[in-house]
Amino acid sequence: MSEQTTLSISTHGQGLYEFTQQAADWVKKQAVVTGICHLFVQHTSCSLTIQENADPSARVDLENWLNRLVPENDPLYTHTMEGPDDMPAHIKAILTNVSLSVPVVDGRLALGTWQGLYLWEHRHHAHKRNVILHISN
Amino acid sequence: MSEQTTLSISTHGQGLYEFTQQAADWVKKQAVVTGICHLFVQHTSCSLTIQENADPSARVDLENWLNRLVPENDPLYTHTMEGPDDMPAHIKAILTNVSLSVPVVDGRLALGTWQGLYLWEHRHHAHKRNVILHISN
Amino acid sequence: MSEQTTLSISTHGQGLYEFTQQAADWVKKQAVVTGICHLFVQHTSCSLTIQENADPSARVDLENWLNRLVPENDPLYTHTMEGPDDMPAHIKAILTNVSLSVPVVDGRLALGTWQGLYLWEHRHHAHKRNVILHISN
Repeated sequence: MSEQTTLSISTHGQGLYEFTQQAADWVKKQAVVTGICHLFVQHTSCSLTIQENADPSARVDLENWLNRLVPENDPLYTHTMEGPDDMPAHIKAILTNVSLSVPVVDGRLALGTWQGLYLWEHRHHAHKRNVILHISN
Repeated sequence: MSEQTTLSISTHGQGLYEFTQQAADWVKKQAVVTGICHLFVQHTSCSLTIQENADPSARVDLENWLNRLVPENDPLYTHTMEGPDDMPAHIKAILTNVSLSVPVVDGRLALGTWQGLYLWEHRHHAHKRNVILHISN
Repeated sequence: MSEQTTLSISTHGQGLYEFTQQAADWVKKQAVVTGICHLFVQHTSCSLTIQENADPSARVDLENWLNRLVPENDPLYTHTMEGPDDMPAHIKAILTNVSLSVPVVDGRLALGTWQGLYLWEHRHHAHKRNVILHISN
């Protein structure tokens, strides 16, 4: 048995956008009791990550740390036609995740106590981002 | 057909803790011949990685390199309440993996000759870490 | 229902080797309509990534950026017996991916418009690299 859905996540600039609740709600509605839920983002300038969802300062630091590691306007870049935030976005995407797999236990996403699901937007402009969820047992 | 189990891995400070044997032993006991085994760690300050399990010096260098890239007491950090090793642990976790998927071929984990499964502990204190294994065909 | 195959990818030095077409062709031949395709590389000195397949300059910049972050001949390295490109290759592998999972929608890999599948070779010498594909519904 397997089911799929696509979450559309609206972003308005760089940052970590939590979608734990949307994913958890969809998983609870499926008939899978013991299974696995795969997440996949269909873009190359944003990414997926699982991180602490308690203290927002952890996310601020993640964002600032990655921005410092991968700054805009690095003279190394030749791929600059789509703006100064484009090449850093691709690099940040390859350092984080395009796909994640979370077990489903007793019909629910088996995230740890402090784990949240995040879409990490690496571009400045507003975007609609697709995350495909696939659940199977 | 799918089965799940949880491995509990005791850590006592930073480093790469191999659990290839525990995972391989569990997989061999399952009835799945051609399948896939998913691994998921339920924490945000340790992570999973697959690396060379032959020469221990490779793991020493990985650890030292990542510690240099993500040092403690970086003035950038604002999330400091849980100790100087906490924010670096979150950053190291997002740069490595929370989930991995390894094919099962002929009833065994199809790791390459030099590949081992590791829990990468990023905190100094002792911890019990949960890794959920999910196998399906 | 699940099927597996192994792609053998010949590399001749560092760089991103696209194998989107080989993977897509194999997926189309399988009977799975709604499913998931897992990719796994059986090595520790190359890796997998999904990146922009439109403008080649993005890949050049990715390669140069990662080479600068993880240079050869770093005095930190003690694992040097297999050549100056070996330890950097392990580090680059842990920063990118050994496994990826792509949904299958309507019998095809549901990659985004600009997404391509790449084997990222981190060694200088020629190699044959194995990527196992596993599809299930």
